[in-house]
Amino acid sequence: MLVNKKKIRVEWGDCDPAGIVYYPRYFAFFDNCTAALFEAAGLPKQEMLKTYGIVGMPMVDTRARFLVPSRFGDDVIVESSISEWGRSSFDVQHKLFKGEALAVECFETRVWAARSRSNAEKIEGQTIPDDVKAKFRTPA
Amino acid sequence: MLVNKKKIRVEWGDCDPAGIVYYPRYFAFFDNCTAALFEAAGLPKQEMLKTYGIVGMPMVDTRARFLVPSRFGDDVIVESSISEWGRSSFDVQHKLFKGEALAVECFETRVWAARSRSNAEKIEGQTIPDDVKAKFRTPA
Amino acid sequence: MLVNKKKIRVEWGDCDPAGIVYYPRYFAFFDNCTAALFEAAGLPKQEMLKTYGIVGMPMVDTRARFLVPSRFGDDVIVESSISEWGRSSFDVQHKLFKGEALAVECFETRVWAARSRSNAEKIEGQTIPDDVKAKFRTPA
Amino acid sequence: MLVNKKKIRVEWGDCDPAGIVYYPRYFAFFDNCTAALFEAAGLPKQEMLKTYGIVGMPMVDTRARFLVPSRFGDDVIVESSISEWGRSSFDVQHKLFKGEALAVECFETRVWAARSRSNAEKIEGQTIPDDVKAKFRTPA
Repeated sequence: MLVNKKKIRVEWGDCDPAGIVYYPRYFAFFDNCTAALFEAAGLPKQEMLKTYGIVGMPMVDTRARFLVPSRFGDDVIVESSISEWGRSSFDVQHKLFKGEALAVECFETRVWAARSRSNAEKIEGQTIPDDVKAKFRTPA
Repeated sequence: MLVNKKKIRVEWGDCDPAGIVYYPRYFAFFDNCTAALFEAAGLPKQEMLKTYGIVGMPMVDTRARFLVPSRFGDDVIVESSISEWGRSSFDVQHKLFKGEALAVECFETRVWAARSRSNAEKIEGQTIPDDVKAKFRTPA
Repeated sequence: MLVNKKKIRVEWGDCDPAGIVYYPRYFAFFDNCTAALFEAAGLPKQEMLKTYGIVGMPMVDTRARFLVPSRFGDDVIVESSISEWGRSSFDVQHKLFKGEALAVECFETRVWAARSRSNAEKIEGQTIPDDVKAKFRTPA
Repeated sequence: MLVNKKKIRVEWGDCDPAGIVYYPRYFAFFDNCTAALFEAAGLPKQEMLKTYGIVGMPMVDTRARFLVPSRFGDDVIVESSISEWGRSSFDVQHKLFKGEALAVECFETRVWAARSRSNAEKIEGQTIPDDVKAKFRTPA
């Protein structure tokens, strides 16, 4: 199973008046890490959306546990992988390390989503193509 | 138990290229809703931090389930309440409604945190004062 | 000429480790204020885009001067108006007040933009309809 | 004069419903680029604040011109340099390139700021030390 590592610099603007990362920013980091995981599998998002006719991979359920705070100037490493594939949804796991310490861990359930054919305003889950899943078994 | 309702206008900049709310923005909404809940209890954050000598209420664990997407121009209502008090941590629950529909629900565990006396770089949990908890029993 | 006033609560997550508003957040405030100005003129953005077949009002040039810092918990008022109409572009002016004090002022030049008919990837300026301009002369 | 180049990946969450970068995000990019410029001069922000006893380099005046839009998945390059030093303020210039094209340019005036000795709530300009200025003449 493909595991992608992404280095993230914590910036001044990611931090709050307590001097630590404003936690919604971690979710933006993780969203970027999921995109980077797909890119590492040979599926850069901007091409993938066109190739497969989807509008994105909207979040259905996400949870994060914050164990160690980070500050601006810190470089952290996030390890990301798909933990489970469903028919039209999938789970992603992220582990954010600050040095050797596991600082944040995050779980995501996302949907492979396209615009409804009957109503372009509506977004609905689609079957995830087998060739997409296959790319995560053998790293590109 | 005090329940606070807060109306939020979804703005253009809260939304992503799929035209729906970029989910990390929901966590910023919920962080604002927790601040609004404390303010409704008579504890505006900027005063509360000074009064009780804390640096904030950092997130330890949060989870959100996304049931119905929202778009820019939507006005949503968030109902927020404390679901449990611990010694130095507490749980908050948010329900975001789009019209009658429950669109997002979120669970938070936060810590009542001060700078460590022995190391100002370190942030650590403190016993939550009883008078703080009492304010949520009888709405101000 | 229509002038719209919008109250904004400065939130914890709008502020940086110095405890004052992280200045890129002011531009998000002002973007929301331009949307609110159009809504006050009877043109809520989500409907306006459909009615006039535009993709948005992208920024061409913006400048802000920061005179007085604001902190979380502050309520500020922004006064917004169109300062000039061109053929396909227009200027917006925002004055952000903290109490009586002018705290930030901002100038924007935006374009009334649609997707190019020959290339949907390209966004290009369109003539601003006269009835749009007229709505700002007589407040709705 | 030191010129720093920083590569930035435009992410999904940086973009708005028109599919292009939400312009306040550019200001966050540029703020990160100013921090990177100082780090390239041997002054990483988190150390610099401690060494010189300042709270930051708050923005006084900034202007950006947006020439070419960018989309998620784009890699852009920002060239940043100090264009002028004053006694307690300084100007920064950023040029953001998309391939060969100048896509955005930005001008900043910032203040070298410390907490007032008479009122810790107040932030005020300080004389910029000569050794700070010197670091930008000879790249570290």
